[in-house]
Amino acid sequence: MAEKQRKGSLLSFRPDIKVLDATLRDGGLCNNFAFSDEFACALYAMNIAAGVDYMEMGYKASKALFDPEKLGKYKFCDEQDLRKIVGENRTEMKLSVMADVGRTDFKKDIVAKKESVIDMVRVACYINEIPAAIQMIEHCKKLGYETCANVMAVSKARDAEIADALDMLGRSPVDVIYLVDSYGSLYPEQVAKLTLQYLEAGEKYKKSIGVHAHNNQQLAFGNTIEAASWGASYLDATVNGMGRGAGNCSSELLLGFLKNPKFHIEPVLRFISEYMLPLKAQGVVWGYDVAYLLTGRLNMHPSSAIQFVREKREDYAAFHGELLERD
Amino acid sequence: MAEKQRKGSLLSFRPDIKVLDATLRDGGLCNNFAFSDEFACALYAMNIAAGVDYMEMGYKASKALFDPEKLGKYKFCDEQDLRKIVGENRTEMKLSVMADVGRTDFKKDIVAKKESVIDMVRVACYINEIPAAIQMIEHCKKLGYETCANVMAVSKARDAEIADALDMLGRSPVDVIYLVDSYGSLYPEQVAKLTLQYLEAGEKYKKSIGVHAHNNQQLAFGNTIEAASWGASYLDATVNGMGRGAGNCSSELLLGFLKNPKFHIEPVLRFISEYMLPLKAQGVVWGYDVAYLLTGRLNMHPSSAIQFVREKREDYAAFHGELLERD
Repeated sequence: MAEKQRKGSLLSFRPDIKVLDATLRDGGLCNNFAFSDEFACALYAMNIAAGVDYMEMGYKASKALFDPEKLGKYKFCDEQDLRKIVGENRTEMKLSVMADVGRTDFKKDIVAKKESVIDMVRVACYINEIPAAIQMIEHCKKLGYETCANVMAVSKARDAEIADALDMLGRSPVDVIYLVDSYGSLYPEQVAKLTLQYLEAGEKYKKSIGVHAHNNQQLAFGNTIEAASWGASYLDATVNGMGRGAGNCSSELLLGFLKNPKFHIEPVLRFISEYMLPLKAQGVVWGYDVAYLLTGRLNMHPSSAIQFVREKREDYAAFHGELLERD
Repeated sequence: MAEKQRKGSLLSFRPDIKVLDATLRDGGLCNNFAFSDEFACALYAMNIAAGVDYMEMGYKASKALFDPEKLGKYKFCDEQDLRKIVGENRTEMKLSVMADVGRTDFKKDIVAKKESVIDMVRVACYINEIPAAIQMIEHCKKLGYETCANVMAVSKARDAEIADALDMLGRSPVDVIYLVDSYGSLYPEQVAKLTLQYLEAGEKYKKSIGVHAHNNQQLAFGNTIEAASWGASYLDATVNGMGRGAGNCSSELLLGFLKNPKFHIEPVLRFISEYMLPLKAQGVVWGYDVAYLLTGRLNMHPSSAIQFVREKREDYAAFHGELLERD
């Protein structure tokens, strides 16, 4: 392999870089998607002002599998609910939704693009579900949407599986392939290698590459800019890092780093003061905790750490022992 | 410049890597060094159990300039105070103190090595104080100590100044030259470049290179392992990241990453539960806050952000405006 070069420099900007705000979606996992209309409207306006390229409105989850009485509307993203927030979305910013393989009635719930305010469907799957993901991608593509494939928990996959997955997705009509560090277990050196592997497939098949990081080891921002520096162009962030467990790459860190003058940090700062701090004060919990470091470091799903934090436990060494028994 | 290679791999370990615990010293800046004897004794025992190579006991500050009535003993590190905690320190772990150029009566307060439990004196200076630092280093070297030069706020220095400083320190008897990101403003790519520059001088003059990072942009751990991967061998950490403002690289993250079997994370986990969480509960404040991101990103001293946090302000956008006026 020829020596790879980083793309761009720290002072210049790459017009191919797109920022995707996933606050309602990944952040929704922290509060059962119970965001007020006021919150969602303000977030929408803020993202536009900040120069964000895509705003993810939530999940397209199956109402047969998930109870709309117990979960907020951003778990389902019904067209009429979205329009209450974004109207016809006659803006530069595009809207996305995420649909999990096996947890969505996509044939019923995803309508033709021309009837929807949604621009992009992001299909999330584990690596053994690639064929099901491709079926969904083909379906959404025919309906007129941009599509992403978010292959989750890639830190658990074997090299040969990743190569195979990239090849299968490369041959599919998907637009963007995402490197997803679901467990927050990857170090920047590993992110660099994986990004280069994803980019190689991306160049071969004309796909863009994206990155979605978690903050278990305080590396969500570091890993995101590492992937970006090698050429990843779709970058996920959430305001104040709000997202499952240790959370994600913070919008304020990412927009503070990117040099494209279209990005602005001030609207994010105002939004944090007005909306995120009150959310925290209400008791919604996310962000780095030693418990998340422990699952991340062991390349495990964060569910046990989420439980640990929810129970307000503080016995980290005992928790570590429990994890090692389970590993 | 020939293509540089990272040193070691993610699974192997480099015996040259030394971890320095700076909790009493950088953490002391959060609580005026008011650590109890019980805390210091437990930290000392924990560091030994965790395999830490150096424990920094605090500063050697001038009692003419700083009031021992108002500041805890770790600001001054009198020999008899240290011995209460470490006895004769007949262990594998070495002890260090930091002495700031212009804020220490080093000729009076630093006694001959054979009369001291201290092994290493770390001289901290700004880049325009290198000659004064070298004078102190020569003095301490003659007294029998290992020495470090911690050139602070290198993110503010010009390339030619850094080259000059490295050359001057290279010709001095100093043992270790530290890359110090006092403002938490450096990105990993910049840390990599600076580390390679420091290492070049280190190879020429037979000096080791160290790294001391701050967490303003949640990059303290990421920057520390970035520097380590290129060859920095002295790595500063503090338990739970306790340190001025946004704090430092967390011991639990660093020891969870390093593969040398001599390092153990469990003692750190226990110490966090038993000693760090109570410290936080008492109201001692450190760690990432959006305010620190803003000073870090603007390459400014964190003092205004520390003030912002102390006043429990939450108006980040207004604070950002104030910083931009001052910049």
